[in-house]
Amino acid sequence: MGTSFEGRIRETGLRLYELAAGDQPSLFKKDYWTGKVMDWSMKNEAFKQEMFRFVDVFPYLTRPESVARHIQEYFCRPGQDFPKSMQWGLKLVKPDSLAAKMAAKSIAKNISNMGRQFITGATIEEAAPVLKNLRDQGVAWTVKILKEAVKSKKDEEDFLEKQVALLDAYDSILSSWPSLGGGAGDLDWGFTPKNNISLMASCLYSQYLTKAPAFDYMVDMARERLRHIYRKAMEIGAYVLLDMEHLPARAFTLELFKTINEEPEFRDYPHKGIAFQAYLRDSETLLRGFLSWSRKQKQNFGIRLVKGAFWDEEVVLANQNNYPVPVYTNKHATDASYERCARLVLQNHRHTMLKCGSHNIRTVAYVMETARDLKVPQDRVEFQMLHGMAENLRGAWLKSGLRLRLYAPVGEIIPGMAYLVRRLLENTSNESFLRLSFADGKSRESLLRNPADLVAAGPEAQKVVETAPEYGEMGPFKNEAPIDWTLQNRNDFSRALKKVRQSFPRQVPLYINGEAVTTSDEIKSTNPNQPDELIGVASSAGISEINGAVSAAKAAFSTWSRTAAAERSGLLFKAAAGIRKQRHALAALLVFEGGKNWNEAQGDICESIDFLEYYGREMIRLSAAQPLADIPGERSQLVRIPRGVGAVITPWNFPLPISVGMSAAALVTGNTVVYKPASQAPVIGEAVYRIFQAAGVPKGVFNFIPGSGSDIGDALVTHPDVAFTAFTGSREVGLKIIGRSGETPAGASHIKGVIAELGGKNAIIVDADADLDEAVGCIVQSAFGYMGQKCSACSRLIVLDDIYEKFIEQFRNAVESLYVGPAEDPRSDVGAVIDESAQKKIQAYIELGSKEGHRLVGDSGRSGPGHFVPPTVFTDIAPDSRLALEEIFGPVVCVFRADTFDKALELANGTSYALTGGVFSRSPANIEKACGQFEVGSLYINRAITGALMQRHPFGGYKMSGTGAKAMGSDYLPQFMVSRTIVENTFRSGFAPLGKG
Amino acid sequence: MGTSFEGRIRETGLRLYELAAGDQPSLFKKDYWTGKVMDWSMKNEAFKQEMFRFVDVFPYLTRPESVARHIQEYFCRPGQDFPKSMQWGLKLVKPDSLAAKMAAKSIAKNISNMGRQFITGATIEEAAPVLKNLRDQGVAWTVKILKEAVKSKKDEEDFLEKQVALLDAYDSILSSWPSLGGGAGDLDWGFTPKNNISLMASCLYSQYLTKAPAFDYMVDMARERLRHIYRKAMEIGAYVLLDMEHLPARAFTLELFKTINEEPEFRDYPHKGIAFQAYLRDSETLLRGFLSWSRKQKQNFGIRLVKGAFWDEEVVLANQNNYPVPVYTNKHATDASYERCARLVLQNHRHTMLKCGSHNIRTVAYVMETARDLKVPQDRVEFQMLHGMAENLRGAWLKSGLRLRLYAPVGEIIPGMAYLVRRLLENTSNESFLRLSFADGKSRESLLRNPADLVAAGPEAQKVVETAPEYGEMGPFKNEAPIDWTLQNRNDFSRALKKVRQSFPRQVPLYINGEAVTTSDEIKSTNPNQPDELIGVASSAGISEINGAVSAAKAAFSTWSRTAAAERSGLLFKAAAGIRKQRHALAALLVFEGGKNWNEAQGDICESIDFLEYYGREMIRLSAAQPLADIPGERSQLVRIPRGVGAVITPWNFPLPISVGMSAAALVTGNTVVYKPASQAPVIGEAVYRIFQAAGVPKGVFNFIPGSGSDIGDALVTHPDVAFTAFTGSREVGLKIIGRSGETPAGASHIKGVIAELGGKNAIIVDADADLDEAVGCIVQSAFGYMGQKCSACSRLIVLDDIYEKFIEQFRNAVESLYVGPAEDPRSDVGAVIDESAQKKIQAYIELGSKEGHRLVGDSGRSGPGHFVPPTVFTDIAPDSRLALEEIFGPVVCVFRADTFDKALELANGTSYALTGGVFSRSPANIEKACGQFEVGSLYINRAITGALMQRHPFGGYKMSGTGAKAMGSDYLPQFMVSRTIVENTFRSGFAPLGKG
Repeated sequence: MGTSFEGRIRETGLRLYELAAGDQPSLFKKDYWTGKVMDWSMKNEAFKQEMFRFVDVFPYLTRPESVARHIQEYFCRPGQDFPKSMQWGLKLVKPDSLAAKMAAKSIAKNISNMGRQFITGATIEEAAPVLKNLRDQGVAWTVKILKEAVKSKKDEEDFLEKQVALLDAYDSILSSWPSLGGGAGDLDWGFTPKNNISLMASCLYSQYLTKAPAFDYMVDMARERLRHIYRKAMEIGAYVLLDMEHLPARAFTLELFKTINEEPEFRDYPHKGIAFQAYLRDSETLLRGFLSWSRKQKQNFGIRLVKGAFWDEEVVLANQNNYPVPVYTNKHATDASYERCARLVLQNHRHTMLKCGSHNIRTVAYVMETARDLKVPQDRVEFQMLHGMAENLRGAWLKSGLRLRLYAPVGEIIPGMAYLVRRLLENTSNESFLRLSFADGKSRESLLRNPADLVAAGPEAQKVVETAPEYGEMGPFKNEAPIDWTLQNRNDFSRALKKVRQSFPRQVPLYINGEAVTTSDEIKSTNPNQPDELIGVASSAGISEINGAVSAAKAAFSTWSRTAAAERSGLLFKAAAGIRKQRHALAALLVFEGGKNWNEAQGDICESIDFLEYYGREMIRLSAAQPLADIPGERSQLVRIPRGVGAVITPWNFPLPISVGMSAAALVTGNTVVYKPASQAPVIGEAVYRIFQAAGVPKGVFNFIPGSGSDIGDALVTHPDVAFTAFTGSREVGLKIIGRSGETPAGASHIKGVIAELGGKNAIIVDADADLDEAVGCIVQSAFGYMGQKCSACSRLIVLDDIYEKFIEQFRNAVESLYVGPAEDPRSDVGAVIDESAQKKIQAYIELGSKEGHRLVGDSGRSGPGHFVPPTVFTDIAPDSRLALEEIFGPVVCVFRADTFDKALELANGTSYALTGGVFSRSPANIEKACGQFEVGSLYINRAITGALMQRHPFGGYKMSGTGAKAMGSDYLPQFMVSRTIVENTFRSGFAPLGKG
Repeated sequence: MGTSFEGRIRETGLRLYELAAGDQPSLFKKDYWTGKVMDWSMKNEAFKQEMFRFVDVFPYLTRPESVARHIQEYFCRPGQDFPKSMQWGLKLVKPDSLAAKMAAKSIAKNISNMGRQFITGATIEEAAPVLKNLRDQGVAWTVKILKEAVKSKKDEEDFLEKQVALLDAYDSILSSWPSLGGGAGDLDWGFTPKNNISLMASCLYSQYLTKAPAFDYMVDMARERLRHIYRKAMEIGAYVLLDMEHLPARAFTLELFKTINEEPEFRDYPHKGIAFQAYLRDSETLLRGFLSWSRKQKQNFGIRLVKGAFWDEEVVLANQNNYPVPVYTNKHATDASYERCARLVLQNHRHTMLKCGSHNIRTVAYVMETARDLKVPQDRVEFQMLHGMAENLRGAWLKSGLRLRLYAPVGEIIPGMAYLVRRLLENTSNESFLRLSFADGKSRESLLRNPADLVAAGPEAQKVVETAPEYGEMGPFKNEAPIDWTLQNRNDFSRALKKVRQSFPRQVPLYINGEAVTTSDEIKSTNPNQPDELIGVASSAGISEINGAVSAAKAAFSTWSRTAAAERSGLLFKAAAGIRKQRHALAALLVFEGGKNWNEAQGDICESIDFLEYYGREMIRLSAAQPLADIPGERSQLVRIPRGVGAVITPWNFPLPISVGMSAAALVTGNTVVYKPASQAPVIGEAVYRIFQAAGVPKGVFNFIPGSGSDIGDALVTHPDVAFTAFTGSREVGLKIIGRSGETPAGASHIKGVIAELGGKNAIIVDADADLDEAVGCIVQSAFGYMGQKCSACSRLIVLDDIYEKFIEQFRNAVESLYVGPAEDPRSDVGAVIDESAQKKIQAYIELGSKEGHRLVGDSGRSGPGHFVPPTVFTDIAPDSRLALEEIFGPVVCVFRADTFDKALELANGTSYALTGGVFSRSPANIEKACGQFEVGSLYINRAITGALMQRHPFGGYKMSGTGAKAMGSDYLPQFMVSRTIVENTFRSGFAPLGKG
């Protein structure tokens, strides 16, 4: 069959080309504005970026001067080499001038035309004439509500209502239109409903990213909503297809589809389908599994097979999270995968219908010829295209006798923008079939070649599949990949939680010079979510234990400080391996003792590993003597040497990563350590001790002394033999340590150093052009993740007037969607705060806020037994109120208004802290201004302000937020060392060695 | 004449080759040990380096186990690929084993044979048989006492005595030997004395390097000694030739020769000569000048023309000091210069005799043929060679009828080692004529080519003469070249001193926000060397002025902190240009107000310029945002931002460079400054203010507030608006500032930072194998330069037992040679200390030392009117005495003994300071140990421990010596800044820009 089959594909393809000839997709017609933009975008990558970003922000620009200002910021910057026509004469005029407003108006019209190219209308009624027109030519439709960023329960409910209403409305519109293909009643061609909709699972349950641990719960939630839609469809006889989204939603979508279709109520309804993507490396395997399940169901599902529209995103996310890239990175490989998948579906035509979604002539020809070979009946294949793409191919399909359905987005332009940008990207991609065929004029023959042959000849064939990096070896640093909540991981972690719980209460001694020491004083540690559960009982150090630990550390210093840096780094790598091995057990401790939910607990594990892997590598880098000059007769170099005994005093909110990180930094640089964990987390503290002990850190080098009361901390930091203190914690304690460390005690061998990370009162500015869908999710995460008990957490929001009302509404909806429950419950977004005293302190702030301002969210909370505080949002708080200025360290946020970006910055800078800050803006000028003037140690733009990553986001603040140390970055370790300049005169008796020094 | 002249040279050359044929210089004969060493040295550069370094240290190895240990350290290190025979079977044996001792003995014999190759004997009597033997064959001699490192008055006197005695002894030896060439009596060939000596000017006056400002004085001192030698020579009829040394001694040697020969007493004595070197770029010019002078004298001088033996050293020193390289860097150019010079001398044969010192057949043939052309009488040319070099050429010279004189070093092996190494280097150089001819076998034809032709064809012809770097432009940083004490500079500085003195007493106001402010409180500043001379009267700040200055600085911060870094750096470059322009006037202030001598004052100028040029460049480097990761969809970067208002509090001992440096660091990083100069140096403080003001630093950015009393400093550093203090000064005040800065005051916007450089109690270890000639000079400089009033100054010496007595003797002699006098006197090595209270404090320590130990030097001092304290050395002080532990900050040194290097290190580390330290050692193992274990911020090996240079020697200590800041290096400026991480999510609507971030 081989040659003749490929030969037939070639013939069919050439025939399709002929039928399409003489016309271009309208997108590439340069006599239209959109065509010009596409032409420029294909020629000039920089322009394309600015253009697509401008399209992305455009719907938010409600005022003409704002359009004009953005045009200037995107297209009229110095050094940009863009065509005059794309600057709309705005380069030198004021944004609020009449000329600018006129230009803005015409741009708005152009962009809106561009949107209309792909979006059929704001409502089904508005879309009707468009649908009718093509339907008259024999083309069917599937209608999709554009609402890609459903973010809250409210949004989900709105969507559900809208979707059901659309089914009804579409039904009544269609009732007066004849069926296609001579079909009777509501069935086109006699077998498929005229009323056909597509929808995404994420519109039914929006929290699928953060709720991954509670997989079954979220499938349940979505299924309950999907039932309503299915029922309505059954009632009116409509077709419902579940779309496929980006990878993180795939398992959820598939499970939703399977479980609902196993329900007796829906089993017999024949008009149901789901989409599959061919661009994933595991597409074929997944499809086989699905087909095997569907055969067992004895049902008849439609399968829309597409190549996949999230390629850029999948590549970016994989890179950002350090996952293997899930998609084929070669277009031919995707095309070949598509053909294999299409053949699979066609082979199963008895219980599936293939909906071939492609604008690629080769692909369609392949499907046509395969169907012919497999004798697939006409009613088991249909072809789909996107509205607005490749209009010239429609006729070719129809003339070839193919049944054609267009994908018809309906909705407002704002939620549609992401969709529009995706389409523009697709069309301007270097590998786009339409671009190659109809804009670049690549030869038909070459475009009709078998992609499998091209794969075999191309680089993908040679490419080794990426494997997880081996951290034990010294490759370059990579962030530990976040946990993937697969069934396996969910089960493993559930089991670990049960098992670890059985070990409570634990007895925790001190460890001094490698020996366990118990004392009569005790510290009791309980579960914040269940205070009657005792997690552990720790011995509490007194002055004599402090002295003993410092002595041990001092004695161990001379050997440890001279141990080769590579060896010390090696111990860190071993410790990292140790954490990986027991990650679930350690995460379970974080849940029970720290009150962390599943995601936060597992995130802490990754961060702990990162500290070890990164600082280990950093020390190896820093241990190389740094040559200082290349002068003959002289060898000058700088070497770094440890300081001495360090006190490491860590907080309860990140008891694992911060303890591991600060200890690792002190140890790997050659210092010896006395480590005092937070008294709320001694059990995790002991785990930290054991991690280093198991890695092989010698006796006395790392000593563990839980203790309570400020006397103990004071005795430690003021000890004459303690050369430095590394502290993360409250401002009050931090300033005390700094003050006490300044008083050099008699007998001290060093001027004491202090590396302190203190509090924050972090603000996020929401600019008038912010992407609210993105902003709201990130802000909720920044403010309420771990109940706001992060020094980086957002506690102030400054929102520009123009967008204030809209923001407030979305934000309230999102906060109200948070699930409050005990940390061990995988559904919980928000759990109890650390202890009763924290609870009381936060509640006092809430009472104050309720008096001084307006409580927007937070009226209802979960009551005990845990230390719960409801996520709370205040508005109308005076900027000089205590609530606006003091660190609350709980789930409380104040929202302020500002009428200009400058005023927003001024408000943001109006506290004594400078730790983190965020800006959501799509104005390059405002972003630049924030970079220069926002007084923070870490500025985050268009993303959450918590969750700093090793190496990529060095962390630490100034003003009252800390000493300016930047943990996680390359400036950190040198602070644990001093340096020695070594200058050798190598010139002897008139004789100097050649070359360097 | 052209072709035929070159043709004759070629013929003569080939004839000389023929006459020398059939033999090799013994140095290249591989059947001898020396020959093998030379062979290996030529083949293996690494071996050559170790070998020559071993030869250099060898004479100091008084015990066999010490020889064995050094052999192991030099030749048996892991990774060295040396022949087994060069490891003497010592790789695996203990240095004190019998086998090792046997090996050491045989090595000693080999090295001593190697020395004997070039050195005729330890005394003239011992040398006599060697001299006699060759003299019998018709070869004459010039005898030279090997004492290259005369270091003290005592050494000079010893040398003089020895030289005179040698003349006598040689005379009596020679009296029994017949004259050469049939000459009668004491004249060889009838016209030149049998008794012929060579000597160096530096043996007559050893301080020529440090006493360059007092040029006439040192010429006077040397001339007085030379007169004795001339008189003796006249008495016995001997020939005296003044050798030429490295460049720093040239002007001195020439002036000495000229001035003594202008004295009537010596005018008529005909047997006097001087050496000239041809390898310097200005050789010919200099020679023309000399010949013109000598013609006027109507005297008859011998001119020994050599190519020059200090090539390596001249290149290294020029590079180290950033001078233009003074020598030709191409061998042909030197050869061509030699020929031009030789022709010049021969043209002047009526009143000069050419002594052609060369082993190069081409050169000698050129001289022979030129002499023939110019009809130079036989008695106006003689030829010279070095003893031990090119024995095979001697016969050739004699057979060609040339008169030959050998250069005969007489002396102990220790002072001879530098000479020996120089000879070995010469022979193994890639461009050595002897090596090329007799070891490498290069063709005679090619070696006889005209060097002028080769120069014209070679790279030197194209090479642009190096010009001084233009600092105003942004080339890479280069250290400002030290002043060259030419006549011009000496005169300019003398005039500046006179002129500046006329401006005293100066009135110095405060400068706040650009306005001069006067107060009723006053600070009086006087000349330490002449306390009744009032240098200036300064206004003294009170609390209100402090507050005013801080307010001004705070107000100026917002604009200055946002000024572009390049612009701020530009102001530093302008300030540097300003200093260069008025360098003599500023240096004069340092002499009068600071009590600095000429060298120290001018050194401070260079350092001040360096601070500005270096920090300016550093800030430009640091102002570039540092990209943090290359992750698609994310742009992460780190930017550095200023801290706020800085207090800069500076010491009196480096009132210009430290003030300029700390202020420049604070300013260029974008901070605004309140600068408080030392109350001993307000006039220089005002000069610092004016330098920045003249460069264009805006109002309020830099404020000047002299003040006295600890209240003022306290008010400044504790001011809530002062974000940091940069302090250099005493431990007491520094610890107080650190303590007070730790107490964050109410209303403070920052946690205060402190950058503190405090004191030192710096030790130098003198290992048993130290080069004492080098060590003593460097130690005197380190301990007594600026009267020990440097935080880096040496105040403890730890000397290994084996070398203790020898060291003590040389050290005492050197210290006693110091010239004590007022700073303005160019002769003064040591002047008055800063003020009466310093004088009293130091004197109290001296009294204590005199009670507790033995005062080796320091009994006699210069009495007033200045605050003089005699340079003082103690021995036999207990290591726990106050004298051994406390910073004295004056010209007082304690010497300790140690029996092992480990104990020496332990003693060195036994104080609370860790600033600078030094080691003089030629043991690679001990040097490595010191690098790892010597607790200092700056370790100097085989050089002085003061005089750190910008970029090459980052400076600063730890323990009680400071906060570990390293001024002068790349770690410094970041301490004046905090940093901001900026993370931008660049991923929008599924669309990420390509490439970075």
